[in-house]
Amino acid sequence: MIIYEPNKNWFRDIWNLTTSWTIRKIINGVLLVGVLATVICSVFYHFDIVPLLNSSIFSLLGIVLSILLVFRTTTAYDRWWEGRKQWGDLVNNTRTLAVILHACLPKTDDASRMYFARQISNFCIALRDHLRKGVKREELIDVPAEEGEALGRVQHVPNYIAYLIYDRMQTIYKAGALTEADMINLKPHHQSLFDVLGACERIKKTPIPFSYSVYIKVFISLYGLMLPFGLYKDFGFYTIPLTMFIFFAMIGLELMAQEIEDPFGLDCNDLPTGDIALTIRKNVFEILENRSVKETTSGGIYSKVF
Amino acid sequence: MIIYEPNKNWFRDIWNLTTSWTIRKIINGVLLVGVLATVICSVFYHFDIVPLLNSSIFSLLGIVLSILLVFRTTTAYDRWWEGRKQWGDLVNNTRTLAVILHACLPKTDDASRMYFARQISNFCIALRDHLRKGVKREELIDVPAEEGEALGRVQHVPNYIAYLIYDRMQTIYKAGALTEADMINLKPHHQSLFDVLGACERIKKTPIPFSYSVYIKVFISLYGLMLPFGLYKDFGFYTIPLTMFIFFAMIGLELMAQEIEDPFGLDCNDLPTGDIALTIRKNVFEILENRSVKETTSGGIYSKVF
Amino acid sequence: MIIYEPNKNWFRDIWNLTTSWTIRKIINGVLLVGVLATVICSVFYHFDIVPLLNSSIFSLLGIVLSILLVFRTTTAYDRWWEGRKQWGDLVNNTRTLAVILHACLPKTDDASRMYFARQISNFCIALRDHLRKGVKREELIDVPAEEGEALGRVQHVPNYIAYLIYDRMQTIYKAGALTEADMINLKPHHQSLFDVLGACERIKKTPIPFSYSVYIKVFISLYGLMLPFGLYKDFGFYTIPLTMFIFFAMIGLELMAQEIEDPFGLDCNDLPTGDIALTIRKNVFEILENRSVKETTSGGIYSKVF
Amino acid sequence: MIIYEPNKNWFRDIWNLTTSWTIRKIINGVLLVGVLATVICSVFYHFDIVPLLNSSIFSLLGIVLSILLVFRTTTAYDRWWEGRKQWGDLVNNTRTLAVILHACLPKTDDASRMYFARQISNFCIALRDHLRKGVKREELIDVPAEEGEALGRVQHVPNYIAYLIYDRMQTIYKAGALTEADMINLKPHHQSLFDVLGACERIKKTPIPFSYSVYIKVFISLYGLMLPFGLYKDFGFYTIPLTMFIFFAMIGLELMAQEIEDPFGLDCNDLPTGDIALTIRKNVFEILENRSVKETTSGGIYSKVF
Amino acid sequence: MIIYEPNKNWFRDIWNLTTSWTIRKIINGVLLVGVLATVICSVFYHFDIVPLLNSSIFSLLGIVLSILLVFRTTTAYDRWWEGRKQWGDLVNNTRTLAVILHACLPKTDDASRMYFARQISNFCIALRDHLRKGVKREELIDVPAEEGEALGRVQHVPNYIAYLIYDRMQTIYKAGALTEADMINLKPHHQSLFDVLGACERIKKTPIPFSYSVYIKVFISLYGLMLPFGLYKDFGFYTIPLTMFIFFAMIGLELMAQEIEDPFGLDCNDLPTGDIALTIRKNVFEILENRSVKETTSGGIYSKVF
Repeated sequence: MIIYEPNKNWFRDIWNLTTSWTIRKIINGVLLVGVLATVICSVFYHFDIVPLLNSSIFSLLGIVLSILLVFRTTTAYDRWWEGRKQWGDLVNNTRTLAVILHACLPKTDDASRMYFARQISNFCIALRDHLRKGVKREELIDVPAEEGEALGRVQHVPNYIAYLIYDRMQTIYKAGALTEADMINLKPHHQSLFDVLGACERIKKTPIPFSYSVYIKVFISLYGLMLPFGLYKDFGFYTIPLTMFIFFAMIGLELMAQEIEDPFGLDCNDLPTGDIALTIRKNVFEILENRSVKETTSGGIYSKVF
Repeated sequence: MIIYEPNKNWFRDIWNLTTSWTIRKIINGVLLVGVLATVICSVFYHFDIVPLLNSSIFSLLGIVLSILLVFRTTTAYDRWWEGRKQWGDLVNNTRTLAVILHACLPKTDDASRMYFARQISNFCIALRDHLRKGVKREELIDVPAEEGEALGRVQHVPNYIAYLIYDRMQTIYKAGALTEADMINLKPHHQSLFDVLGACERIKKTPIPFSYSVYIKVFISLYGLMLPFGLYKDFGFYTIPLTMFIFFAMIGLELMAQEIEDPFGLDCNDLPTGDIALTIRKNVFEILENRSVKETTSGGIYSKVF
Repeated sequence: MIIYEPNKNWFRDIWNLTTSWTIRKIINGVLLVGVLATVICSVFYHFDIVPLLNSSIFSLLGIVLSILLVFRTTTAYDRWWEGRKQWGDLVNNTRTLAVILHACLPKTDDASRMYFARQISNFCIALRDHLRKGVKREELIDVPAEEGEALGRVQHVPNYIAYLIYDRMQTIYKAGALTEADMINLKPHHQSLFDVLGACERIKKTPIPFSYSVYIKVFISLYGLMLPFGLYKDFGFYTIPLTMFIFFAMIGLELMAQEIEDPFGLDCNDLPTGDIALTIRKNVFEILENRSVKETTSGGIYSKVF
Repeated sequence: MIIYEPNKNWFRDIWNLTTSWTIRKIINGVLLVGVLATVICSVFYHFDIVPLLNSSIFSLLGIVLSILLVFRTTTAYDRWWEGRKQWGDLVNNTRTLAVILHACLPKTDDASRMYFARQISNFCIALRDHLRKGVKREELIDVPAEEGEALGRVQHVPNYIAYLIYDRMQTIYKAGALTEADMINLKPHHQSLFDVLGACERIKKTPIPFSYSVYIKVFISLYGLMLPFGLYKDFGFYTIPLTMFIFFAMIGLELMAQEIEDPFGLDCNDLPTGDIALTIRKNVFEILENRSVKETTSGGIYSKVF
Repeated sequence: MIIYEPNKNWFRDIWNLTTSWTIRKIINGVLLVGVLATVICSVFYHFDIVPLLNSSIFSLLGIVLSILLVFRTTTAYDRWWEGRKQWGDLVNNTRTLAVILHACLPKTDDASRMYFARQISNFCIALRDHLRKGVKREELIDVPAEEGEALGRVQHVPNYIAYLIYDRMQTIYKAGALTEADMINLKPHHQSLFDVLGACERIKKTPIPFSYSVYIKVFISLYGLMLPFGLYKDFGFYTIPLTMFIFFAMIGLELMAQEIEDPFGLDCNDLPTGDIALTIRKNVFEILENRSVKETTSGGIYSKVF
């Protein structure tokens, strides 16, 4: 995610627009189309051709175009925002889990406190990597040898860590150090670990149906190709900047939607899941161990955080 | 579902567009309309007819057209996405059910662990088939003779399997091996089996009202028929590609919506419920039995998974 | 509800369009407007009048028209779909209630099993009729004389049946045959009886505000009246079919929305609440009594189910 | 709320349109604009002025206009419908509360039954008035002197009544007449009293931001003022009815949205919260005391209920 | 938030429009554009240039423009309204927490009552400041020295206060003064403190993706720049007021959306979180301590509350 102060400075934001790789891609695409339009217009001018098409045809196509772009933008943004909500829920529930555990556990049981602090943090780190390239065991903190071996065997690491947390809670409960009400109160927050995990997997693994994805690309390509033919009659050489501007409008919405569709990756506008995971680690350790974890400064304005 | 990497390659995606049967159907329809438009335009040209209609009439109709297509696309996609969410919930809840059972059951009760692993897997497989052509008993795993007979008698197989799971839990609880808090914690995840089942049945059995379905078809047919008459005056023989393009735009949205409206079938863009059911089986067995189930590789890019 | 196979046959669906009473009403309305337009055009032609209006005025009005029709369609469909969801919840919760009761009740208590099966079924049947013309006692199954008298006294039958169910559960619980965990687990499913009941009453009793309802009617009437005046200048006698087509577009959306707005009645596209109630009865008896209830076949394609 | 039978009679509804004060206000506004337009057109005609503006400018402005009106209509309707949902929840939860209390309380404790019936009814009546002009103590039923004094002291009456209900439940629970499971089952329904109360206060106290409210008014005023100038060139004296019709379209959406924005008041289309409160009182007394409360007939069609 | 009476006085609202800083900013921007347009038109007039562009190009761009503005307005308003809902939930849950605590705690334990009243109030005040400039310890009420020291050490003050509340509840529960059912009933309301906190942090920390934010600004800037060139041909010097009006329409939506996007700040239309926090303090003290807190009058109409 690119850090910026919303609503502060119209022109400084525009000035920094190339911070975003997608905006750069859009600009490249628009320049390419500009070249194409120039070639087409020159040919028309040189051979004195006046195409029969005029701009009225574009308003007919505009209906479907707007439906497609609204559909594309809305569904992509919904994924992005739902992903953010899920990670927000993760923050809430890990905090609550830590607070309740800290209040319920026997005052002397520091070993369990440390265990839970470590495992909750590891769950979040493992989830971050599970949604990217796969979990790397060396990213997890303080994994004892025996547990590391077990982690190496299982196919689904976050799943297994969540199991370990419940198992420890259950052991303590069976030993009588947690009451029935404690277990009932703790449980929804543990359950939400699975819910967040499952929801993120769903968002990641299910892009919009292939038909729609291809259909939009075909439509925009054909529409863009028609633009110089349709505009030349009315606007002459003004066609070149106009084609570029209209194409900028369309391709921009499509490419930005592509970028945020899978919000857990490393694109410029993806969610800062890594940053959130570290915040959770900090909070959880502060609550359960009274140990402060050094804050990594997250850089200045227009810097990128992942 | 067609597997593809979102946002990687604009032109490779377009190149593989015929992977989707619906896109092929759309292309066929568009070619047919192209032939029709050619005939009409030739007649106009030959007999020197200039129809009085012009393209301005289409913007009046465009309002209703866009309302219909938005309505169609949105409701169809909502079903598809809700179906995906339900199966996502199934993943979450079967995992949680397995984890809590594994942690709560007495360490030695391997028989119950195996029983639950088998029944949870069977529930998912039965649900997949229940939403397609009906449950086939030979697809279920390890069904003992006596149970198989009972399954043959009941009309609603997933219902019955869910009952068996609760019955076993209740028996263990009555025997004292599960506490009250365990039962209260286990229950929401069992309940979600019914919730997912009911929601999927609802989506499958309730397409949009018949009036709307017919109305949209009548409207698109009439609109498509008017196109050559309305465009010929302004665009001459350009009418043919234009009619094809505009018809491509409209029919595409309608046919893609039809495809994803019932998302549990075997259409190209339907949900991979079979794949999800197998994933659940794998996860559940891994948790409850420490037995690894071989992963079936799901093929390369642009392959289909059901 | 009209039964149809979605997405199978474009032309067979159109052929059966008059199955729906609303579509028939629309066709009648459109023919009437056709006659009106013919009269107006003939008068213009005969007296050689050219009205000053042209079709550009309709695009100004189109903005408000589209807002109104979108608002109308969306809110009506939302009611219909929410009503369907509520009845879907009823299916889920009655099933779960039956399953948990069957598993929790003492093995020998067949009397209670029969009681619950009967009362749950009666609740659904009473709800169906409560949302239509009022509950008829003879539709309920196996009502003993004493209970029948009580039902005759109360004003709100479904309410009372739901009370009877809870009362019986509470009696058994007080007698010690149900544990605390059982009561806590059973309760959400009983509660959902009230929730579904209340939500359906809300949908039925609260149509869109009267102002909006009248306003839309006034608007469409005036707009339809202006059509022949606005189109004659540009399209001559083509005005007649065009007026009919545009009016078809508008009146269709309004009338279909009217039909599904109160989804619990007996209109062609209303929800098959009766069919669902019978399905619930079948399921509940199968679970609680192992008694199979004969399935009433629901007719062929394009038949109506209520 | 104006009572009407949805979908029965197109023309009878239009005939009764002036039942709604807002529709009357709209008609007044439209007539005023008609006078204004007549004056402007006469001046143009008399001095033979042809303004340079034409109607094409309105399609540019139409984009923003439609965004504003959609935003206005949607947010206002959402408030109205959410308000209705909240009162629907109140109905569901007070019923369930009454049913569970009646089933759980000792058979002989009629005093508590009467207490709860009275306090639940009073809560709803107090809520209705709290959302209008403030609670009047004489509207509450059977308030004993001592309690009345306490009610006079507190600033927030519904809050206090809800406290009284919980306090009585807790007292009975502490005395051993309610079990733990009863308390856990009763609690969500008591909690929903606070939830409904809070949600209604939120809807009432937070209209759309002042900026938007003013902005829409400025925009519609300017747009309406431009209409005669923009239409005269193309339509001559037809400008007068056209201006009135277009203004009718815009001002209607704005004024209807204003009316339903705060749905708890006494406007014609506001929710019948008073009627609902009386229904709840009737239901609750029927359940808890077997006492029938006389139904007040709610008048004929097109009558108003508040 | 600016206090106003919705729907009372069309013209008084317009008269007070400059109460809102954003509306003032919009007016400044529009005047600036007016000057620019005057310069451009004068140049055209003086050198007798007729630009080839005409207003038809704007309807092509209008599609994307409307998508962007709808997207901007909807997402900003959703944040604002979700923020309001979260603070509404805070009101509901703190009230319920106070009521249940007051009913459940031993009659004599006034110390705990005072403790909870203080900490719940402090949580809300700390949350308000946490979402603005950071918590100032002197704003909190009655913080004892020892606790103040601890608050100085922790990085996340609201988190810590919520922990203190749970810790105290747990201590009383362990001491036997609260039952299991009490703890289970109290817990969801305590949990909602974390949920509201997390949701508000999410809204504050995640503005719309940077790409979209920049893209909209670039698009509006270019569109505004094109206006005088595109309108001059058709409208001559009328271009100046028209450009101003259209720019007013666009820039208004963007700036109002900017203002409400982060709804917890001190902009004119931001939520009155401070006012809500004080209301909660008043309610909580009234319930738990029977102590009345003086109401600060919130000023007359069109005054600002934060």
